Amino acid sequence: MTFAVTVLGSGAAVPMLFRNPSAHIVNVHERLYLLDCAEGTQIQLRRNGIKMQRIKFIFITHLHGDHYFGLIGLITTFHLLGRIAELHIYAIPKLKEIINIHLEASGTILRYPLIFHEIDPDIQEIIHEDEAVTIETITLKHDFPTCGFLIREKPSRRNIRKDFLEGRKLTNSELQGIKRGLNYIDAYGNIFKNEEITIPPPVPRSYAYVTDTAFHEPIIPIIKNVTLLYHEATFMQDKAKDAREKFHSTALEAATIAKKAGVGKLMLGHYSARYKYLSDMQQEAQNVFPNTIMADDGKVVLID
Amino acid sequence: MTFAVTVLGSGAAVPMLFRNPSAHIVNVHERLYLLDCAEGTQIQLRRNGIKMQRIKFIFITHLHGDHYFGLIGLITTFHLLGRIAELHIYAIPKLKEIINIHLEASGTILRYPLIFHEIDPDIQEIIHEDEAVTIETITLKHDFPTCGFLIREKPSRRNIRKDFLEGRKLTNSELQGIKRGLNYIDAYGNIFKNEEITIPPPVPRSYAYVTDTAFHEPIIPIIKNVTLLYHEATFMQDKAKDAREKFHSTALEAATIAKKAGVGKLMLGHYSARYKYLSDMQQEAQNVFPNTIMADDGKVVLID
Repeated sequence: MTFAVTVLGSGAAVPMLFRNPSAHIVNVHERLYLLDCAEGTQIQLRRNGIKMQRIKFIFITHLHGDHYFGLIGLITTFHLLGRIAELHIYAIPKLKEIINIHLEASGTILRYPLIFHEIDPDIQEIIHEDEAVTIETITLKHDFPTCGFLIREKPSRRNIRKDFLEGRKLTNSELQGIKRGLNYIDAYGNIFKNEEITIPPPVPRSYAYVTDTAFHEPIIPIIKNVTLLYHEATFMQDKAKDAREKFHSTALEAATIAKKAGVGKLMLGHYSARYKYLSDMQQEAQNVFPNTIMADDGKVVLID
Repeated sequence: MTFAVTVLGSGAAVPMLFRNPSAHIVNVHERLYLLDCAEGTQIQLRRNGIKMQRIKFIFITHLHGDHYFGLIGLITTFHLLGRIAELHIYAIPKLKEIINIHLEASGTILRYPLIFHEIDPDIQEIIHEDEAVTIETITLKHDFPTCGFLIREKPSRRNIRKDFLEGRKLTNSELQGIKRGLNYIDAYGNIFKNEEITIPPPVPRSYAYVTDTAFHEPIIPIIKNVTLLYHEATFMQDKAKDAREKFHSTALEAATIAKKAGVGKLMLGHYSARYKYLSDMQQEAQNVFPNTIMADDGKVVLID
């Protein structure tokens, strides 16, 4: 089952020719979740061959422009292309006001239901749940109310062992019962214990999207052992003062968080425009947390 | 003296990979005027090597997203890059409200003066004047209050004939006097008539930016004889019904306006996404008005 992240923008505040600002598409079991939506996101979706109308859920970390200036364009394009399916947006209430003033200005009445879910970045809670995932907020430390998002795949059922199935004809309800954890009793009264005829499902995977934030250790227990952590690294450690003043992180700080949280893999991003090449930044992080990769526009990361 | 248009977006409502929505940069004597500012305009400025901080004047035709969704991003980028120079924006009052709600949402206090000039698209008037140009509104016929813009180069002074200057030593004030139209009297009392010792300046040039609009003949006297007319052509004539219903024009209609107004050259643009190739559309217009060119993202048109 798919669990993948496509990076649509890996840069910080100012859009560059070679790097767009923040937006990530997360595909979990073919459901698409959009995290942040900077200017140009709809073009990045096209460029990366992502069918944008399949997006049903959009999560905005905070209202700095490099995280949401592309949202009104995407909402409008959905409308112009004839969308009728619901769109759910999760953000602080102010964003609803901004969307409304834009729609009102052009006299646009959307053809599709836009459902706005108000979130409070200061409260750590599950804000969304569906068949594939739960999504919870991660309160961050920025100069604006900001939260990251933690996407947890729901556990799947146990799988029935192939060698057990061979030569047996089980009804559909028997198969479903075993998958739900029941023992199996055959026509002769033989009992097959569930744990002997099934194998455990894969461990549920998880993706934590942590941007924008200063070095902030209180998030460590929340993101403990996530499969992939995306953590902003606007600066390298020689600019730690800038990072602190602007409530951003350095690559070293991001790696420290990854190490303390025992995550599977770390991906850095949200680079200041000053960093055109990233190998030094990657090295800085890998010195602390070796399994560090670098976000790049168009990069697809499989979570497994 | 430069008078040139760079097309940053030649498409209609929906941004495409191969075509951005509306934005034109007009360079008159090295002053930059931005007409419309769709999503992605700041990236298009970079892509075309235009120093964006040199833009001092922005004019917005109307508040459909494909004409202004890039403005808040550009305003913010100017701020982030340390701008201190004034920025003048000309648009209907509602846009001021929209800009303010975005700035307020992120707590941004611009470091530079943003001067908003409210315009009334229903009134035909000069809204801007500086040393190089006058800019006036052109009331259009759209399903939203909309005006185009007419940029007229100011007449320059007469030039002194080189053969007259040869062998004569004139003071600076004498030179300036002749350029202003005075006769010249030499040390012996000989009178040289101004029209005999000067040549007339080049005819002032003009650029009319006409989008979005249905076929609308009342604009003809206003744009009479302009050097270059940009006129929207969202559709071809076989979609005249769509054009009428959506208050847009066809290529044939744009060419008819160009012919009746006796313009020097016509440039079409604002093409519906249905038209990937444009040769048929160009042919349709050229049948009526031969000197028709097609806007294309990145195209630079010298006005002479």
